Amino acid sequence: MSRPKPLSGFPEFLPAGRIVEQRVLAALIDTFELHGFGSIETRALEPMTQLARKGEIDKEVYVVRRLHAEGTAEAELGLHFDLTVPFARYVLENSGHLNFPFRRYQIQKAWRGERPQEGRYREFLQADLDVVGQGVLAAHHDVEVALVVLAALERLHVEFGVPPVLLRVNNRRLAEGFYRGLGIDDHLAVLQRVDKLDKIGPAKVQQLLVGELGLSQTVAATCLELATISAPDDSFVERVRALGVRHELLDEGLEQLAGVVRAGSQAAPGRIMADLKIARGLDYYTGTVYETEMQGLEHLGSICSGGRYDSLASDGRTTYPGVGLSIGVSRILVPLLARGTLTASRSVPTCVLVAVDAEETRGEADAVAARLRARGIATEVAPKADRFGKQIRYADRRGIPFVWFSSGEVKDIRSGEQVAADPDVWTPPALDRRPAVTGA
Amino acid sequence: MSRPKPLSGFPEFLPAGRIVEQRVLAALIDTFELHGFGSIETRALEPMTQLARKGEIDKEVYVVRRLHAEGTAEAELGLHFDLTVPFARYVLENSGHLNFPFRRYQIQKAWRGERPQEGRYREFLQADLDVVGQGVLAAHHDVEVALVVLAALERLHVEFGVPPVLLRVNNRRLAEGFYRGLGIDDHLAVLQRVDKLDKIGPAKVQQLLVGELGLSQTVAATCLELATISAPDDSFVERVRALGVRHELLDEGLEQLAGVVRAGSQAAPGRIMADLKIARGLDYYTGTVYETEMQGLEHLGSICSGGRYDSLASDGRTTYPGVGLSIGVSRILVPLLARGTLTASRSVPTCVLVAVDAEETRGEADAVAARLRARGIATEVAPKADRFGKQIRYADRRGIPFVWFSSGEVKDIRSGEQVAADPDVWTPPALDRRPAVTGA
Repeated sequence: MSRPKPLSGFPEFLPAGRIVEQRVLAALIDTFELHGFGSIETRALEPMTQLARKGEIDKEVYVVRRLHAEGTAEAELGLHFDLTVPFARYVLENSGHLNFPFRRYQIQKAWRGERPQEGRYREFLQADLDVVGQGVLAAHHDVEVALVVLAALERLHVEFGVPPVLLRVNNRRLAEGFYRGLGIDDHLAVLQRVDKLDKIGPAKVQQLLVGELGLSQTVAATCLELATISAPDDSFVERVRALGVRHELLDEGLEQLAGVVRAGSQAAPGRIMADLKIARGLDYYTGTVYETEMQGLEHLGSICSGGRYDSLASDGRTTYPGVGLSIGVSRILVPLLARGTLTASRSVPTCVLVAVDAEETRGEADAVAARLRARGIATEVAPKADRFGKQIRYADRRGIPFVWFSSGEVKDIRSGEQVAADPDVWTPPALDRRPAVTGA
Repeated sequence: MSRPKPLSGFPEFLPAGRIVEQRVLAALIDTFELHGFGSIETRALEPMTQLARKGEIDKEVYVVRRLHAEGTAEAELGLHFDLTVPFARYVLENSGHLNFPFRRYQIQKAWRGERPQEGRYREFLQADLDVVGQGVLAAHHDVEVALVVLAALERLHVEFGVPPVLLRVNNRRLAEGFYRGLGIDDHLAVLQRVDKLDKIGPAKVQQLLVGELGLSQTVAATCLELATISAPDDSFVERVRALGVRHELLDEGLEQLAGVVRAGSQAAPGRIMADLKIARGLDYYTGTVYETEMQGLEHLGSICSGGRYDSLASDGRTTYPGVGLSIGVSRILVPLLARGTLTASRSVPTCVLVAVDAEETRGEADAVAARLRARGIATEVAPKADRFGKQIRYADRRGIPFVWFSSGEVKDIRSGEQVAADPDVWTPPALDRRPAVTGA
């Protein structure tokens, strides 16, 4: 076989890149679990009928069939394109065995057959966090999931040098109430056009609102005025009020959004803002919506999005409202690793390489390694009893910081310092125990 | 939507089962990394041409296509059915960026469209561990991978109560040399029939060897005698020698197998044996082969198998020999969880639930929770300011051991003991910090 070529849109990491990914995932998981979110995983495949439910996205689905299933009555399956559809199915399927509100995170690959570009892949890793209720779900969970995700993303910034983020929040109720207060019936039609603000500019949106929806110039202008409001605190409430529109849903939306932004700006100052133009396209959100950009990498699009569904799932009798966010792990990491923004200090977990004098005494090196491992120090034994220079080079090429010799000495190959040491006592500096991950 | 039904062959865990799986995986990963093995992940999809290489297994492959890819020239893709084929491809694709011998583990799902039964699933999780060399790979790695995997499986036994295992080892060179020493040319044909020993018994195998391969009754009987030899130590060498066959490959195989079994029985007494009937079907192994049964659950088949490939991969110029094992995580865990053999002490990571007096003072409960989390204690805040009895029931149903009250007291809801506590100081017993996983 000749050298295979990568598949476009299916990123894979070299070992050092994978170490960065592992550390990032461990930080996310730790943050999620500290907040009492438990992990689930769902199968990669769902019935196509299930995947086709959500609007037009079925165009991008990968269909799966057994090579020799022709002529059988097996249900057609597809790879899941997000983790929300499988989660909703999981909740319905297991509702009798789950405790509500059910708090879960889910970190898995998803697949979409769309055109690959930076930040957008055909196979990508998502980290989803949701709370789902049975019948009802209190509004404070809209605050909670935003705070948990901000804490997680801030940790990636502080610990590893991932760029800081800005979470932009809006509320569908607010927009709906505002439009209804203006006498507009088809609020989704307005939302859909206002969503294009960043792409086509206010003049063109105004044209669409007037030309396509028959709004008066004044009403269209008021809709646009709402969309231009943003603030890092709850001062947006007054600015909306000043537009003079009144509606019950507007009040509800303002209160919910103010709650999220107040708590968010207190817990993570500078990382959150109310942004009343955020619409999240045609997704089924019914209240809070979230989008997140990474500073300096805004062109990647939102790296963490989500919102509230009044009906994440329903079995006809019971409705399960949910709120959550989905972190685009691949969208964050693939570009940062490709640019060299994030790096691991070594390409292996190994902290110590035990040198081998001769193949006949390999057993002695194995014994030293076992003693170091018993104390949690990741250790390899040199694969060949080469001259020591070559064994040190083996360590150096992988970034292994220490080489242990049968003389009972250990060498820091970075400084060259070599000291006598006992494998039952010697401890590496805390920072050398595991590969370090750092930002540029 | 009505309640969805599970897909046969696609097991999913409830949250408590997933906690067991997480802990088991963490123990495997920790063991692998302590031995200097690094993680990689490969994409789920490979070109069908790649997947079809390996004998007849293509019958079970899931083929994948984009729903709207008709008429395009895209290469046909399939879901990987193991982690060896993708790993071989990864090694070739990245050989210029990897350091050899390359030590990697890989924990991912794989898919096979075979008939589901206990221990055999259409989607399953594998944990693979391999060492691959460039051109050459020393025999001591055959010992090493067996020891690492035995250490990992023993840890599952000791820490979580997974049943103990027995690793059975053989060597293809040994068998080939033995058959050649008997004057047999087509050694694979013999191996293939001897492999049926457990299924059809020695008399029928003897018939096949004589009837189908034209061996004399004496030669066939000698082949069978070899296959009946097994030993927990290197005493098998003498028993093979006593059969009077001589061949260079036989000597090599005996030495390699003795090396693995000697080291294995020293490091993990009672967990390893030489078993000269192990053939591993028609897989491309060329030296050591491994199979593992779980005590009391032998009917599940091998839960950890592998061996040495003289050519795991080759680009025509360079050959990459490898040796490794693959742990069937789903094959181990799905039956043990279904039987209730393994259980988690709670269904959530949460250690403390902070009670809420009234929605107006939820912020105070949030502040207590933040202080506990800052010290690594997984904490939730009650979702509703119900009466305390209901809030305690919320904790109890999930197995959360502690409830914190605004009075500054914390209650162990198992014992009922309630004490005054400071959220900056109070520490739960070490065993309560995380969910405990135990065996029946």
